[in-house]
Amino acid sequence: MAAKSKSRVRATNKLVAQLGERKVRRDEKSKYPASFDSSKLSFSYDALVVARSEVDVAATLKLANAFQVPVTTRGAGTSLTGSGSPIKGGWVLDVSRMSRIAIHKGKSMAVVQPGAVVQDIQDKAAAEGLFYPPDPSSLKHCTIGGNIACNAGGMRCAKYGVTRDFVLALEGYLPTGERVSWGGEYKKFATGYNVRDLWIGSEGTLGVVTKAVLRLLPKPARTWTILVAFEDDLQALQAVQDLLLAGMNPSILEFLDRNSVYCAEEIAGVKLFKGLSLKPLLLVEFDGHPNALRDDKKQAIDWAKRLGLAYREAKTEAETEVLWSARRKCSGAMFALGDAKINEDIVVPLESQAKFARFLKRLQKKWKLPMPTFGHAADGNFHVNIMYHREVAEERQRAKGAVDDLMQKVVALGGTISGEHGIGLAKTPFMKYARNDAEMAAMRAIKKALDPNGILNPGKLFDEYEVWSKTPEKVVLPWDKKPILK
Amino acid sequence: MAAKSKSRVRATNKLVAQLGERKVRRDEKSKYPASFDSSKLSFSYDALVVARSEVDVAATLKLANAFQVPVTTRGAGTSLTGSGSPIKGGWVLDVSRMSRIAIHKGKSMAVVQPGAVVQDIQDKAAAEGLFYPPDPSSLKHCTIGGNIACNAGGMRCAKYGVTRDFVLALEGYLPTGERVSWGGEYKKFATGYNVRDLWIGSEGTLGVVTKAVLRLLPKPARTWTILVAFEDDLQALQAVQDLLLAGMNPSILEFLDRNSVYCAEEIAGVKLFKGLSLKPLLLVEFDGHPNALRDDKKQAIDWAKRLGLAYREAKTEAETEVLWSARRKCSGAMFALGDAKINEDIVVPLESQAKFARFLKRLQKKWKLPMPTFGHAADGNFHVNIMYHREVAEERQRAKGAVDDLMQKVVALGGTISGEHGIGLAKTPFMKYARNDAEMAAMRAIKKALDPNGILNPGKLFDEYEVWSKTPEKVVLPWDKKPILK
Repeated sequence: MAAKSKSRVRATNKLVAQLGERKVRRDEKSKYPASFDSSKLSFSYDALVVARSEVDVAATLKLANAFQVPVTTRGAGTSLTGSGSPIKGGWVLDVSRMSRIAIHKGKSMAVVQPGAVVQDIQDKAAAEGLFYPPDPSSLKHCTIGGNIACNAGGMRCAKYGVTRDFVLALEGYLPTGERVSWGGEYKKFATGYNVRDLWIGSEGTLGVVTKAVLRLLPKPARTWTILVAFEDDLQALQAVQDLLLAGMNPSILEFLDRNSVYCAEEIAGVKLFKGLSLKPLLLVEFDGHPNALRDDKKQAIDWAKRLGLAYREAKTEAETEVLWSARRKCSGAMFALGDAKINEDIVVPLESQAKFARFLKRLQKKWKLPMPTFGHAADGNFHVNIMYHREVAEERQRAKGAVDDLMQKVVALGGTISGEHGIGLAKTPFMKYARNDAEMAAMRAIKKALDPNGILNPGKLFDEYEVWSKTPEKVVLPWDKKPILK
Repeated sequence: MAAKSKSRVRATNKLVAQLGERKVRRDEKSKYPASFDSSKLSFSYDALVVARSEVDVAATLKLANAFQVPVTTRGAGTSLTGSGSPIKGGWVLDVSRMSRIAIHKGKSMAVVQPGAVVQDIQDKAAAEGLFYPPDPSSLKHCTIGGNIACNAGGMRCAKYGVTRDFVLALEGYLPTGERVSWGGEYKKFATGYNVRDLWIGSEGTLGVVTKAVLRLLPKPARTWTILVAFEDDLQALQAVQDLLLAGMNPSILEFLDRNSVYCAEEIAGVKLFKGLSLKPLLLVEFDGHPNALRDDKKQAIDWAKRLGLAYREAKTEAETEVLWSARRKCSGAMFALGDAKINEDIVVPLESQAKFARFLKRLQKKWKLPMPTFGHAADGNFHVNIMYHREVAEERQRAKGAVDDLMQKVVALGGTISGEHGIGLAKTPFMKYARNDAEMAAMRAIKKALDPNGILNPGKLFDEYEVWSKTPEKVVLPWDKKPILK
């Protein structure tokens, strides 16, 4: 340990000599905010490297590789799983200042640096009549580098796909500090292994992205929104299947279960249907050409009349905002049910959704915790929010048990343990449910092949970590949902 | 060598003992057709394994790995690059009999075995109102396994994406014979490394697919086609940029250069515009909702009037077929210019297309060979057809020189050496232009990590092979373009 620690001090000194004190920060005040991500699990580390260019990235990795210093790459730090927490110390490589965005209209492409904020990319694309669909809920804060590292999703994935589906090319560095580029400013290549897509979703363990080429779509001319209330969770989920089977292709199809509606109505005071209360909702958006939308509208209203208790459509932007209010407010209102939330992002295949809804009822009864659930119903990616009280040890235990049950069940139902958040630290204990030994061995072999010294984001994905063993920091992050209490 | 050969005989005997003579063929008559792919480079090998189930695949790989027998997986054998030729001997694993297709309408998914023919998948999807967009020109013959192995493309890629964009999950076997599955019957996952996309495009060197889950789209309600003639190649390519910059998003945008039009008109006798001859063409198709198409149509006709010499639109299916005739017939007609064709599939970024067109002129002059070129202009993926006479040694030399020049140039223009055919054997000498040392080393490390004994499709991608050193078989394959001679 002493030798290792000495070697790290030497490495850090060398890095300071190369990049300067302004870019390599060793003071606690600079380091603290980057010592955790949105999981709020904080770890001490040696230096924060504030990269301004790819030269800084290369220098950092070369030294880190030579001296075997762990490097955790970081954008905004919105990850919920601990994938951005420097659990093994060493250096945190902050690329958030590398944030240039260039839109190429004729090519329908954006060329971006990793620190570009996703909302900024969407806005700049929109100004050119173009559209970058992925929309993780933290999009006003999160960076494209983090979105690529975790293959971020959002509400529009069932129709449009996830981050991966919009990444044409990546440039950056191997853990050894060697420069590589996978793809270019073109839409097709078949020239050897696709390391681009191996990097995407590898949570910063296989390389550091310094430039990405994104595919953009024509901006849909118009959107139309309808909110439908159903008798119970099962009927709402059955209606999802009915809608998809009828060939409708909504851009958004959000499910709010009865408990989520309870939070929106009883705690946040959102009231959307007169005479109805605590009825699960589907929030459905269609986008496209106005003339095509007319058909979608007709078909969707027929569907809502046939299967729902009541519906409201939005004729203006203000009305659209009203329809969204339950979805937007339920999350903060959940904090009336517990001061701590585990926001899971499990996936279940469509045909298992009814079974899953029944299981969720049993799970809440068994562990005596509320678990309001909402999410992206068209691709079966649900956010199960397990609410508990952090300071009550016995509730923590129950929450822990509930997570484990949940993870086993989604795999048994043919689904998987994460749809868009990734594994990080939080889900490492459940990888054994989702992946067999051969798959894990293959992944470890790939890691070893590309990062022989194991310097990039070590401790993630593969090593089981017990998040419950550590107390999260008591900080409020810019993207935290503000608690709404009655 | 003797020990190796003995060991292979023992391995083959064991395989026969396990799977039986019916599945393990050692006779020349059975083996010959699988001794080459569409490159027609034939190599001798020990046994053809006709797999009927994944059990056969697993048994083959386990034995092969234990005895270090090379295995070349095979579907229809339509690959143009030699990626399906068993250059190192051993066993050819034919999965073409595993060809089941199941369409799940509500989920918009197809679950297919590797031997399913792409056209069959498209037809079965269409019968349910669904759409599988990738359309390599061999789609009536080629299998989805081969399409996945080579990440096949086609004409609709600029709008819809390549094979990769439609693969949700893969199941199959590692080179060690261990069963793995990457993804499932759902649209999102973020659970460790994405080996699914690493397999896609790896040309059968990293695993064997036994099942794939494909994403399907709603079938476009209608298509509309317009053919436009331009003064010269440069103006046609400029019009492509103009069209894309205007925000139009055609489903097909095929370019036929002057030489390709020469073949269609002067050799195949196709005549599409009265009073115009030898004018390069753009064949443009839009698809979508009929009401949205009306706008596309208006915009496209304005564009054609502004930039073209003449245009024809198709009002009926028969007229559409007529507009396609030049594109369909030019390929066979090229054989009037030479009895052998090198069909390249290079990619150049949009902004380099004009430079590329000028280069192509110089290239034909320099090497004194005709190189009619057509292709997928919206994504810059052009098929450069270098025509020569196989029996004329000096022409072969010129063709070889032209290919090398071409490959260096497309990389210099910011493009790449293959858009959809892959590397196989044919493009191995050019990987050094497209990939730097670090990228090649990373790919080799991945290969070694997943296939430590190097049994799967050895000799491809990495080792430089000189295709000109070997005489292709004189056979006619079902998907060969029939020569049209004047």
